[in-house]
Amino acid sequence: MIIGGDGYCGWATALHLSNKGYEVAIVDNLVRRLFDHQLGIDSLTPISSIQNRVRRWKSVTGKSIQLFIGDICDFEFLSEAFKSFEPDSAVHFGEQRSAPYSMIDRSRAVYTQHNNVIGTLNVLFAIKEFSQECHLVKLGTMGEYGTPNIDIEEGYITITHNGRTDTLPYPKQASSFYHLSKVHDSHNIAFTCKAWGIRATDLNQGVVYGVRTDETDMHEELCNRFDYDGVFGTALNRFCVQAVVGHPLTVYGKGGQTRGYLDIRDTVQCVELAIANPAKPGLGVQTISVPNPRVEAEEHYYNAKHTKLVELGLRPHLLSESLLDSLLNFAIKFKDRVDTAQIMPTVSWKKIGVKTRTVSV
Amino acid sequence: MIIGGDGYCGWATALHLSNKGYEVAIVDNLVRRLFDHQLGIDSLTPISSIQNRVRRWKSVTGKSIQLFIGDICDFEFLSEAFKSFEPDSAVHFGEQRSAPYSMIDRSRAVYTQHNNVIGTLNVLFAIKEFSQECHLVKLGTMGEYGTPNIDIEEGYITITHNGRTDTLPYPKQASSFYHLSKVHDSHNIAFTCKAWGIRATDLNQGVVYGVRTDETDMHEELCNRFDYDGVFGTALNRFCVQAVVGHPLTVYGKGGQTRGYLDIRDTVQCVELAIANPAKPGLGVQTISVPNPRVEAEEHYYNAKHTKLVELGLRPHLLSESLLDSLLNFAIKFKDRVDTAQIMPTVSWKKIGVKTRTVSV
Repeated sequence: MIIGGDGYCGWATALHLSNKGYEVAIVDNLVRRLFDHQLGIDSLTPISSIQNRVRRWKSVTGKSIQLFIGDICDFEFLSEAFKSFEPDSAVHFGEQRSAPYSMIDRSRAVYTQHNNVIGTLNVLFAIKEFSQECHLVKLGTMGEYGTPNIDIEEGYITITHNGRTDTLPYPKQASSFYHLSKVHDSHNIAFTCKAWGIRATDLNQGVVYGVRTDETDMHEELCNRFDYDGVFGTALNRFCVQAVVGHPLTVYGKGGQTRGYLDIRDTVQCVELAIANPAKPGLGVQTISVPNPRVEAEEHYYNAKHTKLVELGLRPHLLSESLLDSLLNFAIKFKDRVDTAQIMPTVSWKKIGVKTRTVSV
Repeated sequence: MIIGGDGYCGWATALHLSNKGYEVAIVDNLVRRLFDHQLGIDSLTPISSIQNRVRRWKSVTGKSIQLFIGDICDFEFLSEAFKSFEPDSAVHFGEQRSAPYSMIDRSRAVYTQHNNVIGTLNVLFAIKEFSQECHLVKLGTMGEYGTPNIDIEEGYITITHNGRTDTLPYPKQASSFYHLSKVHDSHNIAFTCKAWGIRATDLNQGVVYGVRTDETDMHEELCNRFDYDGVFGTALNRFCVQAVVGHPLTVYGKGGQTRGYLDIRDTVQCVELAIANPAKPGLGVQTISVPNPRVEAEEHYYNAKHTKLVELGLRPHLLSESLLDSLLNFAIKFKDRVDTAQIMPTVSWKKIGVKTRTVSV
């Protein structure tokens, strides 16, 4: 079950797993498409409706993907989806995922935490009630850790203090209401692993980039989205679009920040590896990570460990090999669709308003 | 402004500050009284309506307390209260505060996180919008830390790891949906201190006990509540009531757990000290603590530091001096009001249901 399977990471993952022979269902309320309408932005690449996407996938590959359209904050809907599909694994991408979006105004900050935290709570309760053996693969973020001045260990850290030692959750320093919502989720998930024996993998991934995966490449109607606006577009995407249309690259501050970037083909690999290697019941949540974060300091120490997925068999697509193939070529192809008014950042962490912003054209 | 000023800690604090010459307003939706009705429980001590309490306080002392009845999750209501009262300090007790309550069922788990996290977000936004200089004093809990095998430092811990050093938020290991909601709040508050320069004191207190304060003692209509039921009653309260009615003491497991307990007269002292010593703007959240937590292990290491409030002038009421005076005597006085059906614990962390429990009589 891919919760949020109509979104950027979710769609690529749904197709990848379906292609690998998994029986896949997508659960999504399509609200990501509504955000585009409300903010007056659009994917650079044209994206088809979820209904057409699924029909096209069937016609190209012969494989079916089930579709449950609804909101996971509605527990009655989620319950019916779980009872109907009986998932062995639930991959949870069904969250508001933009830090700038969460910093637009109070109602969007509250929406982000309400939607993400309550949605994840409902997924945990649904697993407990309907599908105890179901393995939860939850997308966290490296941004949960901030940029501490010590190495970022994978989920936990062993601390010796005043002559005693314990292994404790790695301290969190998130820096947006979005990132904080993921911290809250991670704590809630870890608790239900301990209290209920839920099996969960909290995948803290860096910034994901790229459009092309083997599956989305099969037909233009399977194409994934390419966000380049100031709210949902991430740095690499925006730099590529800016380069193509002759816009200056919008580096924040001195540009001295270090972040980890992840090819979307590695996101789908990571999820597949996580599904194939569920935590043993009752041993608590396992967190594995691939580098990245998002924070304020312009220059800082940054050293995050990422050995576990490599040990599990991850073969990474390095940025040097794939930037042109999977990103810049798309920017070139759809150059005429660029709306330059979307390029400059419009949300400020300091100036976040308390009143709901309305979009005037 | 005392948010949650009709509750146990809030009422004692409101009277104490009013008595000390502060201009006090209580903001409360009175939902704690509704929980009593819904669960079929009641305070051992008879408690008067908030309207009568405030009237009585005026007649006894000549001092006025303003009353704003409404829900802080309703931002429009909260905004009006802030604009009307213009607080210099906001003391925030306005949360669902029972761990067992949060573990009753899914809807109460979700209610607890929604109510506490969104309510606190709204308070932070209200301060930012209407009262930038207002100092937030927020009640956290020692239960945010769990029971790590190393000393619990006050809010932050300095970690040397692989030859590098940083001072980071102390790792959190909460063990109920209630305690987790406080962890979420602490993270959100710390973030707004950094991002907006909010001044906040996150008071992580242990289990509070006792009924009597100087002010509630002035008239029987000012009496504070005394919970002894399995949901809102804490251990000392329950033991006293059990001793009085000849009920066996209900020690959980081997009884080897260590917790810190705090006399309610010290809670009100701590809040007063916190108000008088606001954090300097822009220096980030300060956390000061008085010992206590709540967790699963029956025997464990427990060593929490609590020097800062003593440095600020706290004169603690030690348990050995005040148990009889402030707790057992009340249990004896109201012995006839004990409903023994309320005594045994009825909520299990393991057996938490997904369906809403209804109370049948």
